[in-house]
Amino acid sequence: MSAVIHADTTGDELAAIVAAAAASEFSLTDRASRALWLHALADAVDADRAELLAIARIETHLSEGRLDGEITRTVNQLRFFAGVAIEGSYVEATIDSADATLLPPRPSLRRMLRPLGVVAVFAASNFPFAFSVLGNDTASAFAAGCPVVVKAHPGHPELSRRVAALAERVLADSGAPAGCFGLVEGIDAGVALVQHPLVSAVGFTGSTRVGRALFDLACARPAPIPFYGELGSINPVVVTPTAASTPDGVAAVASGLAASFTRDGGQYCTKPGLVFVPVETGFESVLAAALSGVPGHRLLTDGMETAFARGSEVLLERDDVEVVFDGGSSADAASPLVVAVSLDAFVAEPEAFLEEHFGPLTVLVRYPDADPAALGAALRVLDGSLTASIHHAPDEDVPTLAAALSRIAGRVIFNGWPTGVAIAWGQQHGGPWPATTASLHSSVGASAIRRFLQPIAYQDAPASVLPAELADGNPLGIPRREDGVLVVPAATADR
Amino acid sequence: MSAVIHADTTGDELAAIVAAAAASEFSLTDRASRALWLHALADAVDADRAELLAIARIETHLSEGRLDGEITRTVNQLRFFAGVAIEGSYVEATIDSADATLLPPRPSLRRMLRPLGVVAVFAASNFPFAFSVLGNDTASAFAAGCPVVVKAHPGHPELSRRVAALAERVLADSGAPAGCFGLVEGIDAGVALVQHPLVSAVGFTGSTRVGRALFDLACARPAPIPFYGELGSINPVVVTPTAASTPDGVAAVASGLAASFTRDGGQYCTKPGLVFVPVETGFESVLAAALSGVPGHRLLTDGMETAFARGSEVLLERDDVEVVFDGGSSADAASPLVVAVSLDAFVAEPEAFLEEHFGPLTVLVRYPDADPAALGAALRVLDGSLTASIHHAPDEDVPTLAAALSRIAGRVIFNGWPTGVAIAWGQQHGGPWPATTASLHSSVGASAIRRFLQPIAYQDAPASVLPAELADGNPLGIPRREDGVLVVPAATADR
Repeated sequence: MSAVIHADTTGDELAAIVAAAAASEFSLTDRASRALWLHALADAVDADRAELLAIARIETHLSEGRLDGEITRTVNQLRFFAGVAIEGSYVEATIDSADATLLPPRPSLRRMLRPLGVVAVFAASNFPFAFSVLGNDTASAFAAGCPVVVKAHPGHPELSRRVAALAERVLADSGAPAGCFGLVEGIDAGVALVQHPLVSAVGFTGSTRVGRALFDLACARPAPIPFYGELGSINPVVVTPTAASTPDGVAAVASGLAASFTRDGGQYCTKPGLVFVPVETGFESVLAAALSGVPGHRLLTDGMETAFARGSEVLLERDDVEVVFDGGSSADAASPLVVAVSLDAFVAEPEAFLEEHFGPLTVLVRYPDADPAALGAALRVLDGSLTASIHHAPDEDVPTLAAALSRIAGRVIFNGWPTGVAIAWGQQHGGPWPATTASLHSSVGASAIRRFLQPIAYQDAPASVLPAELADGNPLGIPRREDGVLVVPAATADR
Repeated sequence: MSAVIHADTTGDELAAIVAAAAASEFSLTDRASRALWLHALADAVDADRAELLAIARIETHLSEGRLDGEITRTVNQLRFFAGVAIEGSYVEATIDSADATLLPPRPSLRRMLRPLGVVAVFAASNFPFAFSVLGNDTASAFAAGCPVVVKAHPGHPELSRRVAALAERVLADSGAPAGCFGLVEGIDAGVALVQHPLVSAVGFTGSTRVGRALFDLACARPAPIPFYGELGSINPVVVTPTAASTPDGVAAVASGLAASFTRDGGQYCTKPGLVFVPVETGFESVLAAALSGVPGHRLLTDGMETAFARGSEVLLERDDVEVVFDGGSSADAASPLVVAVSLDAFVAEPEAFLEEHFGPLTVLVRYPDADPAALGAALRVLDGSLTASIHHAPDEDVPTLAAALSRIAGRVIFNGWPTGVAIAWGQQHGGPWPATTASLHSSVGASAIRRFLQPIAYQDAPASVLPAELADGNPLGIPRREDGVLVVPAATADR
């Protein structure tokens, strides 16, 4: 049976796919094998690049350059998680020898993290490759040792099926356990997936509305499961008066902002949507000039076009809002829109400006540069966000601003822009609610693997039952904590 | 204002206590200071041992020896988490240097875990010290840098107030931020605590019923928060035919089981409540003999006495249950009760035997030693548990049993008993639902600190805003991951 279904998945089909995933014994595979499979998947995506790109072009309206870059990103992510699996410190192997003199006495304890179970992955609209069928959630779940069932995003169904078919073929050809990957389609299938007793965790990238609804379902199960939802984010930016005190400074920030919030139609969860700018620096006219050549962009789906038009209209109808730049959107192309509001107006009704607008729209909040306390008060009303950015002069210390924005964001950026999320051990893509449903975690970077792991401790276990990661003599040469001390084998440190 | 209230806490009082905790800026304290405060708390508990023990004796009916040991445990836990804070690897400091050749390009990224916010701790009935006001949850939250508001358990109110007063005094005397600790009492206060917007996480030890209700509240908040509930557990034990094939083997397992399930009245969440024994080994009569001298024990609360009597009655009324030993409980003393059921009867209606009974009661499941497949099928119906144990012969390999029990338990024990949870880096006290609400975590051992942390990444940050843990040159000498490689300073490794 193929696990790739070409219409809304029925309940029976879904049950069979999930059962096959649970029965695949993927959790018993070793880290080295999983790394090979991740590399094989990366190779295959790279090899089919042209064909995949062509399908994605038609379904998403994203540019060839953007999609080509995203495919490279996806390939790199798969390889990155192969490296994380191989390196092995993510299992947190911990070995405590027995000590009867302690109170309570300590037996021999050996602890590690192990795969959690079948992971449901809800693909995103705006990253048809990198946060979809073989995106970050799938790559990190596979690296962890978890079978994956993907709920395809309806914005790119043909691409989803094509990538799923590729995944099935590559996994089968390279010897991965049958059933370890499946694809389902349709709203009902998504709901059934979150509620299925054999599903152990959910990774989700999408809207706050849908994410919250699915989160509620995950919590309400007879046996609740973790729901890792990366939802919306306003991504506030603060430009300091000093940064905007020179024409060069103004030009640099304005051109950077113009590029960031309009990039690929402004369809990033890291798009800067709220920018605190000092009054009377000439920033707004420079920004408007930087936007004059930016073309409109057809958004990912008709629903997004409608939502963008409606969101723009609501802002433009407000008496306290001024238009800084309006590129003049048409029915099938969203053009840049910048509006401005005073700090007082923002503080009076912050919820009117804290809603995320998918598309090339950003809101400037004009703050009086002589009153830093007023800015501080405004920043305290911000909700959780994936990112927050500060534009400051090179020699300007910004500890107060940094502290204020650290409170609400998972990643704080200095003299840079939030769009473009690097793949790294030290990346953080997450943040306090409503940016995510699970602020302890990241959906990008090495730590994303932890979402799909659970601990086990073996007490006084005979050598014959211990996983190799916990065996005497550290035969796999991974970093371990032994009697309280982190030990990094030389081979690992040199790797 | 004292944060210690001597009656049910009112809504206004609770709001003031939580606001003071949130305003305490405890998250800005350094790890070394928090370690000193934890040691000061440990010193004070140790110094007041006799007085605290006397109060606990009256309120809990636990023995002097047990309570004395528990105070030592509590002191050791506080010191252990001081060590975890000092060692510093728990912050997972990770430093990636910029690399523009990658796709997407990598900026400078520095990531660490930081305190999550105000933690609500729901104290347990059965550990008036070690899982109560200054127990594991409080110790790990303090170590993490989180202020704590404890909901006292009504089973030991005077002790809770006394320990809270000690904590307030010690923290104030040693210079901890005012407001970083508070105590509340009453059901309404508990509900309000879970729902308070300034509370960021909940640690709970208690029943499945109450834990599930509070978990549901935590999930249903406008901004959901993590709820770490350590709930009930049946803690299955399997005795292999080989282990029970000699009189010495039978005697050792029977006496160990008798001691474990009756220890301190059987009031442990790790009590072995379901024991799979091979038929016709003589085990049951040896177990009954081992129990004949075990006195009754007054349970912690009147409610528990009632629940124990009712639970015993329900089992004894079943046609498929045989009594192996009945010590004859009275209204104010629970005596050991052992019943037995056939494997077929267990499999026919497992839910009748998977409910946790607080008190000295355990259920034997007689399995035919000639049919290991039948035992395997029975183990597959087990729910999640904190622990699972295997008693086997010293030279007997048990990979199949170990795999079956690993599936459902957070800690798998070989030739030992689950009661008595050591304090260690490699400890795991948690497990799949319904053992806990959050199977990724542990409430005992070093990793318990992670429940109260969230990540932050600094992108291209100036040195002036970076926490010392992420500074160039590693001035604090903690283990860090630098450009993908774990680096453990020699001073740490030697510590």
